[in-house]
Amino acid sequence: MPVNYATPAPDQLHAVAGVRLGVAEAGIRKANRHDLTLIELAPGSTVAGVFTKNRFCAAPVQVCRAHLAKGDIRALVINTGIANAGTGEEGLAAANATCATVAMRMDVRAEQVLPFSTGVIMEPLPVERIKAGLPAARTALKADGWYDAAHAIMTTDTVAKAASRRVSIGGKTVTVTGISKGAGMIKPNMATMLGFVATDAFVAQPMLERLVKEAADESFNCVTVDGDTSTNDSFVFMATGQGEARFDAVGAPGWDEFKAAVVAVAQELAQAIVRDGEGATKFIEIAVEGARSHDEAKAVGYAIGHSPLVKTAFFASDPNLGRILGAIGNAGIADLDVAKVKLWLGDVLVSENGGRAASYNEADGARVMKPAEIVVRVDLGRGGHAGKVWTCDFSYDYVKINADYRS
Amino acid sequence: MPVNYATPAPDQLHAVAGVRLGVAEAGIRKANRHDLTLIELAPGSTVAGVFTKNRFCAAPVQVCRAHLAKGDIRALVINTGIANAGTGEEGLAAANATCATVAMRMDVRAEQVLPFSTGVIMEPLPVERIKAGLPAARTALKADGWYDAAHAIMTTDTVAKAASRRVSIGGKTVTVTGISKGAGMIKPNMATMLGFVATDAFVAQPMLERLVKEAADESFNCVTVDGDTSTNDSFVFMATGQGEARFDAVGAPGWDEFKAAVVAVAQELAQAIVRDGEGATKFIEIAVEGARSHDEAKAVGYAIGHSPLVKTAFFASDPNLGRILGAIGNAGIADLDVAKVKLWLGDVLVSENGGRAASYNEADGARVMKPAEIVVRVDLGRGGHAGKVWTCDFSYDYVKINADYRS
Repeated sequence: MPVNYATPAPDQLHAVAGVRLGVAEAGIRKANRHDLTLIELAPGSTVAGVFTKNRFCAAPVQVCRAHLAKGDIRALVINTGIANAGTGEEGLAAANATCATVAMRMDVRAEQVLPFSTGVIMEPLPVERIKAGLPAARTALKADGWYDAAHAIMTTDTVAKAASRRVSIGGKTVTVTGISKGAGMIKPNMATMLGFVATDAFVAQPMLERLVKEAADESFNCVTVDGDTSTNDSFVFMATGQGEARFDAVGAPGWDEFKAAVVAVAQELAQAIVRDGEGATKFIEIAVEGARSHDEAKAVGYAIGHSPLVKTAFFASDPNLGRILGAIGNAGIADLDVAKVKLWLGDVLVSENGGRAASYNEADGARVMKPAEIVVRVDLGRGGHAGKVWTCDFSYDYVKINADYRS
Repeated sequence: MPVNYATPAPDQLHAVAGVRLGVAEAGIRKANRHDLTLIELAPGSTVAGVFTKNRFCAAPVQVCRAHLAKGDIRALVINTGIANAGTGEEGLAAANATCATVAMRMDVRAEQVLPFSTGVIMEPLPVERIKAGLPAARTALKADGWYDAAHAIMTTDTVAKAASRRVSIGGKTVTVTGISKGAGMIKPNMATMLGFVATDAFVAQPMLERLVKEAADESFNCVTVDGDTSTNDSFVFMATGQGEARFDAVGAPGWDEFKAAVVAVAQELAQAIVRDGEGATKFIEIAVEGARSHDEAKAVGYAIGHSPLVKTAFFASDPNLGRILGAIGNAGIADLDVAKVKLWLGDVLVSENGGRAASYNEADGARVMKPAEIVVRVDLGRGGHAGKVWTCDFSYDYVKINADYRS
């Protein structure tokens, strides 16, 4: 059960002019489920992406990087079941063969296709099954295919994740719609996380590349479930230019409003991943302020958000302040003055001067730990920078899901 | 149930001339258990320690550091139940008051006493109860008190941890005996881990200080249960000089044999902590070789040993190679050539050339994942350095223990 998240209804996911999506059952690893998704982009679309920093990055990620460098992307193909990671040269050949097949079916060149895979690592990708499933996915292509695609890219997700905004900027309507997947192996620098967001605005390539990085930093790069960065993480932003708005250069009128809409969609998609974190029963925002730098704030946020001791305490609704302070102390700030650190749970000041706040009592602590959404606020008292991390708790079900995953 | 570990019998723990230990029930947090331990050292003993690097280090750790700097230590006092961490100025006052009380009872100065606390963080230390319990602990002082002390310092440990060696070096008998505690919140740079090792040899102070660091690096700094470094971690080495052997200066004859015995005891104590890791069902050695530096090897070892995904796979006896490769890829080696990485589980080569080894089959993988002790070997193929990490798996019981800890 995700924490305060439900998939939007199909009619809440606005179609994006120039984007069509189709899904099919290819039987890649399990029968009777949609496991193959095709996304078609109108000619002239611009596309940019950010990817995992894991050195064992998957074959499709390597192919995506190479194809994006050439530009003029016209199709995306996404399979679940098999991640095509840790598969060496054969994996690269399989990813390229997938692109070639899509290219043939869609009448484009192979380097105009971006491949994505998610699922079990180190198993060979069954390219023949993908080939066999592609005609059905192509036949299913439709502008309002976002809802079906959100479901078809799921792995251990318990709900499909999608978000959509339609805003008016300078009198012109702009649509931003996206889907994501991921529920475990989620961490900074992306996750076993796939995110696809499209807009009908025209966005010049250099601006799009900046936007995708900035949006990722404020969304997907703020989430962690278990501290593991996957081999396949990808976030792709597509701009078809089929709508009314155009953003040709830095400083284009309405850019800030546009960016805000993109970030809102990306944050909703990223938070949905944490809300649906494997075994999650709580959604936790860790807001760190008073840091010397943004990186320092994030380091403290992650030190708290990655601590199994903190996460099990949240699961138990236990205001175990010491574990949070211990995590802050482990964040690697060698000259941290603990006497200046302040810690709040929700609206309750729980720690200051290196110990428990004088005003704190356990009843308040128990009260603020109870809700399904909790804000942890830390003031490091050493600078003007801030950073946020979103995470979930650590429950029996996390172990169950990950111990049983392949069986 | 610890993994292949049982407390040595009392008569296997050799007394160390010049050391007496006594325990008592002080009712610090729970009634009817030994929770106060006193260790008395003969005049002329040398003592050195290594402590947590957590910035929120506990009050007793701060006092230990100050008192060790003055030297001439004569007594150690250890309480369980309350960690006296995250307690600010009051915590420091409580630790100092504890030392003063012990000093009065033992007829030494307060700065000749080292205090240690372990248990719940951010609760005030009940100094009055410690004061009240001290006479009984003092009356109980005896040379063969190691077994009782090993039990009295336990917190969530399921077994008492102790190790002892008696070796002959150049015709002189040397005894090394130690105890430790800790079962969770264990990580590099020590743990919620206390370790106390004593020898009857004379060891000059500068050599002792080097020895305690080197022994920690080969033992307590190799273990991780959950990646958290506690506020209270301490490892103290005591040399009474009451036995036959003397080590006055670097290069003293027999030093290497002596060091080997000390490291063996420290490793046994450190491994016992992992074998008794909270919820542990498996003991895992991660041996990394072919690294550019020792630190790089350890970083890879910890990336594997800290990954909840890897640890849950070990719990499930699932040879999920991809999770291990994913962890290696996350270890922060920017220029790692994954094609050169080799991975073995037990004696089975499971991965090379960036993918599954040609010779690998799942039946072999399943066979080597079954035992309660598993060796993971990684060759990074980029240098001549190596490093080891010991860890355990991640089970339902880890969550249960840590969600219930305070209730």
